[in-house]
Amino acid sequence: MGCSQRMIKALVFDIFGTLVDWRTSIARESEILLSPLGIAVDWLAFADAWRQQYQPAMEKVRTGHMPYTKLDVLHRRNLDIILSDFAIDHVDETTRRELNYAWHRLDAWPDVRPGLQALKAKYLLAPCSNGNISLMVNLARRNGFPWDAILGAEVAHDYKPKPIVYLSAASALDLAPEQTMMVAAHSSDLAAAAAAGLRTAFVARPDENGPGQGEAEPSVAVDVSASSILELSRIMNHPDLTA
Amino acid sequence: MGCSQRMIKALVFDIFGTLVDWRTSIARESEILLSPLGIAVDWLAFADAWRQQYQPAMEKVRTGHMPYTKLDVLHRRNLDIILSDFAIDHVDETTRRELNYAWHRLDAWPDVRPGLQALKAKYLLAPCSNGNISLMVNLARRNGFPWDAILGAEVAHDYKPKPIVYLSAASALDLAPEQTMMVAAHSSDLAAAAAAGLRTAFVARPDENGPGQGEAEPSVAVDVSASSILELSRIMNHPDLTA
Repeated sequence: MGCSQRMIKALVFDIFGTLVDWRTSIARESEILLSPLGIAVDWLAFADAWRQQYQPAMEKVRTGHMPYTKLDVLHRRNLDIILSDFAIDHVDETTRRELNYAWHRLDAWPDVRPGLQALKAKYLLAPCSNGNISLMVNLARRNGFPWDAILGAEVAHDYKPKPIVYLSAASALDLAPEQTMMVAAHSSDLAAAAAAGLRTAFVARPDENGPGQGEAEPSVAVDVSASSILELSRIMNHPDLTA
Repeated sequence: MGCSQRMIKALVFDIFGTLVDWRTSIARESEILLSPLGIAVDWLAFADAWRQQYQPAMEKVRTGHMPYTKLDVLHRRNLDIILSDFAIDHVDETTRRELNYAWHRLDAWPDVRPGLQALKAKYLLAPCSNGNISLMVNLARRNGFPWDAILGAEVAHDYKPKPIVYLSAASALDLAPEQTMMVAAHSSDLAAAAAAGLRTAFVARPDENGPGQGEAEPSVAVDVSASSILELSRIMNHPDLTA
């Protein structure tokens, strides 16, 4: 923490894994919707399988093989793939649609709401996620995220880690990249943000993908490293960091 | 008020004139910044002149003669024009830049904040303005607007009354046009929103352009007409309008 943090005006956040526990939320929502149909699978494995389709689907957009398509649409295609992989093809259209919106019903890690509230007095706050706007809006309503704006993939019309997504978030707030800090639990996301000129904050989510299956420490250089959003708020609200 | 309001899930708002009193705010900010330079003009006339450059500037974007350009940039070009028109060319660059941000320091009409708070429990709320995202963010911070997202021209990359601006606001919220209600103090805005398939609510701002110089009644058919955002909240929160 030094000079460079003094000019930071906005914090932009990764969402899946960093602010919300997608894995146990998706497992819970899948069980709620599919077990009444007589389906019994390992629900955490089901959540993991769905998430594993995430990067390959976005890669088609990033490489220009597909025009920008909202994550809700990609999630739905991925759901159809994994239902087939799990040999549970007999799920009706209405249930598939409802299940796809499980991604709008993810729960935040408990430190997030108080941490964001504490950051809001000093910084502009926005998601910089690959999730689409309506997904971000519904997660914010559910979890009390106090966003100033919804930024990220749908505004940039491309997917992280493409530089345009980070740069468009800063630009929408009329900020230079170095006035904007990307907050994420994933080193790859932070490396890409730093390459685009943003400041970076790592937040540890060591259990994101199951107990001990997440990043406890960043594997790249970052400006700030914290164990939670609440700890991040204490670092970033330190009086030495005067605006 | 009837059946058609029951399916409304989101209200999207015009900002300049409908939620904020641009005229007296711009006159005040202009006087604050320019009078110390020894400049004395009719500040309300100055505000009116600046605003009169608004539509012609956007028209270049709407007609494709200029790529989408943020309203902050158009406001700045318009400021340079009117400073010249008022024969006050000796304003330095720093002051011009600061004065241009007067549009980020507009005050809301007094009914707006309680009205939006009352609407928030039942509806998604977003601006659907020609103002850019950072301008919307700063007005929201100043006036306590509880937005779910910032929608409008910068997300659509075009200017109202082009249909894409209204349609992209509904689409970003995963809503059909008829599930979305446009709220404005200007019949022309509401006519365009209705033509795009949105529901419409008129809010009277009879003094927008000076005493008695605003729309007291809509000149087009609308779904709802109210004297304030607070009255609009009472209409739209009526128990007959169950979600």
